[in-house]
Amino acid sequence: MEYVFSDRISSLKPSAIREILKATSDPSVIPFAAGNPDVAAFPIDEVRKISEKIFRDSPVTALQYGITEGYTPLRETVRKHIKETKNIGRDFDDIIITSGATQIMDLMTKVFCNFGDTVICESPSFIGSLNCFRSYGCTLKGVPVEADGMNTEILEKQLKENNNVKFIYTIPNFQNPSGATMSYEKRKQVYSLAKKYGVLILEDNPYGDLRVAGEDVPNIKSMDEDGIVVYAGSFSKILAPGIRAGYVIAPAEIISKMTVGKQAADTHSTMFTQLLVNEWMNTTDFMGHIEKIREIYRRKLNLMCDYIDENLSDFFSYVRPEGGLFVWCELPESVEMPDFVSRCIENKLAVVPGTAFMVEPGETTNCIRLNFSTPSDEKITEGMEILKKVKESYV
Amino acid sequence: MEYVFSDRISSLKPSAIREILKATSDPSVIPFAAGNPDVAAFPIDEVRKISEKIFRDSPVTALQYGITEGYTPLRETVRKHIKETKNIGRDFDDIIITSGATQIMDLMTKVFCNFGDTVICESPSFIGSLNCFRSYGCTLKGVPVEADGMNTEILEKQLKENNNVKFIYTIPNFQNPSGATMSYEKRKQVYSLAKKYGVLILEDNPYGDLRVAGEDVPNIKSMDEDGIVVYAGSFSKILAPGIRAGYVIAPAEIISKMTVGKQAADTHSTMFTQLLVNEWMNTTDFMGHIEKIREIYRRKLNLMCDYIDENLSDFFSYVRPEGGLFVWCELPESVEMPDFVSRCIENKLAVVPGTAFMVEPGETTNCIRLNFSTPSDEKITEGMEILKKVKESYV
Repeated sequence: MEYVFSDRISSLKPSAIREILKATSDPSVIPFAAGNPDVAAFPIDEVRKISEKIFRDSPVTALQYGITEGYTPLRETVRKHIKETKNIGRDFDDIIITSGATQIMDLMTKVFCNFGDTVICESPSFIGSLNCFRSYGCTLKGVPVEADGMNTEILEKQLKENNNVKFIYTIPNFQNPSGATMSYEKRKQVYSLAKKYGVLILEDNPYGDLRVAGEDVPNIKSMDEDGIVVYAGSFSKILAPGIRAGYVIAPAEIISKMTVGKQAADTHSTMFTQLLVNEWMNTTDFMGHIEKIREIYRRKLNLMCDYIDENLSDFFSYVRPEGGLFVWCELPESVEMPDFVSRCIENKLAVVPGTAFMVEPGETTNCIRLNFSTPSDEKITEGMEILKKVKESYV
Repeated sequence: MEYVFSDRISSLKPSAIREILKATSDPSVIPFAAGNPDVAAFPIDEVRKISEKIFRDSPVTALQYGITEGYTPLRETVRKHIKETKNIGRDFDDIIITSGATQIMDLMTKVFCNFGDTVICESPSFIGSLNCFRSYGCTLKGVPVEADGMNTEILEKQLKENNNVKFIYTIPNFQNPSGATMSYEKRKQVYSLAKKYGVLILEDNPYGDLRVAGEDVPNIKSMDEDGIVVYAGSFSKILAPGIRAGYVIAPAEIISKMTVGKQAADTHSTMFTQLLVNEWMNTTDFMGHIEKIREIYRRKLNLMCDYIDENLSDFFSYVRPEGGLFVWCELPESVEMPDFVSRCIENKLAVVPGTAFMVEPGETTNCIRLNFSTPSDEKITEGMEILKKVKESYV
């Protein structure tokens, strides 16, 4: 039988990164292409103890059906924590626990976008989210990311020129892949523009707690007096990604529709995961753990960036990120990026071609994305030496 | 701000059952409305031991990102088991692990249906699946369920009369809510009709292992020489629903598109859950456990149905199901079903009005659905006595 697939899925390609990762599943290849947390960042002992406690004290809650909105004690714990630490969440807001933050992108699009509606995205941006928006047949319009966040003039141009813009998607902290952090000034501008043009903001903040330098900047959601910001949080980078735990904070009317959407998508998220996160937040020094994670990434980021500064600054143009997991490097005009990526692979180093992250069809870039969380310190150094060697192959 | 929601979500109502369950969260109300497994059916000791083993021996696998298709050893374990026990899966088939079986309905619709496409469903049918199809803007067409499964003449009529039919959705074993099991003859007819009209079959089999009487009937997927059947399996009823574990077996080309769709929806399913299920299947007598579950439900089904036969047979028309979790009872024409449901609630018994499960707008039924897995034996007896009392209020 010849299968006739839906329009939305026919045009969707598997993530380029995923394909690269498959091509480089050879363990001798150094993984600068992935985005996995460092294994040392997992609180394994705490998880082991909490898991024992859950299956000793509340096995039925962990195994029985739960409600779509999420485990009530966890919703309260997260709501309180995010209010206290980030001043996020007002009386009109509500929260649901999701199956990872990816599901938030899915619910946002499901709830707001008809086929052909427009989503404005930073370009480059996280390919997982872009593919999610595309999977609903959305038209994506890009706004270039600068060192201090998206270009707000071009943002306004896109808002003016496009009909049916439903939301602006932004990762304001240590953006994936650019590493850029949006300035406070620009956050206020983005908020004002969204309000002016009557569109929503989807603020995705998976890396917000991974700051290794500089000062925290208030989240856009903390400015949300008008109920126009949907905030996406995640436990993937501060606890573990394999448990698939995220949360969305948004006006109750939106949360109500997302709940209906989630009910149809996966009924509810894994109960064990939700009990685990709740216990982790209530019974361990999880803020101390996050500080420990920051130390790990501070060391690894500096290892990578110091090497660039010392050995590759004549070749890579880049802005040292203040956190997150990625470094975004522009190659000299004289070097063709796909050729550079191929030479890396030949030398057993996997990096991601920047084109994977571009928003609009045909958009190009001469950048590559490097990840420092997955490889060990030794592998970072080895990988950087390969980059230097590949650089020298052009001279 | 006034939110403008997507067409697909605007028309979608929260599940009526969910609303009923909320209304009856009072613990003094007897829960014949839910569909939760009996707590005694959870293999708590095994889960506790396996959980300890996982976080002792493979914590990193349980906590790190996994691949979208699912944990490879689990995919192999399930593939082998389903082939051996149900003769399902051919060379052209592949498998992915999903976040519960609900996600299979979501992926099927995402991959095949454009807004306005038609899905043919048994009427009545499982409201969760119906709402999932509706959440993609599908038009649903109903085929009445008889004691031996859907009416195949009306199925052919629906296939002839409707354009853009993408698939036929069926729960052939102990259907929710009707309790009906489709005969072998009808399974062959449904397969032939699907082939003749070039549409797919989505065979949902969450209750297949919960047979308490009669003989197993081959699954439609076991007849699938043409690659037209997508098989949805679930661990919710044989292990636990809170872990959210399902699996879909379908031609590799379909699985490939579903993988792209799942990647955009939730990246992958919880790793702990997948390791747990794999260990459970490989290191415990899980077939013995399923036999134990069957015993529990055999006892409870008989308790409910014997009571009907002895005390309510002049009032309820019903067919005793051979398995599953539900009993579907038609009220006398002289009794208005919504009024009957209200009188039950007044007497602290929650049942589901059958209209919640109807497929097409305006379709009515004078049936109610009773669940015997959630209440204890004592509560079943109490609830049946309330039904008798309510019956007598009409005489």
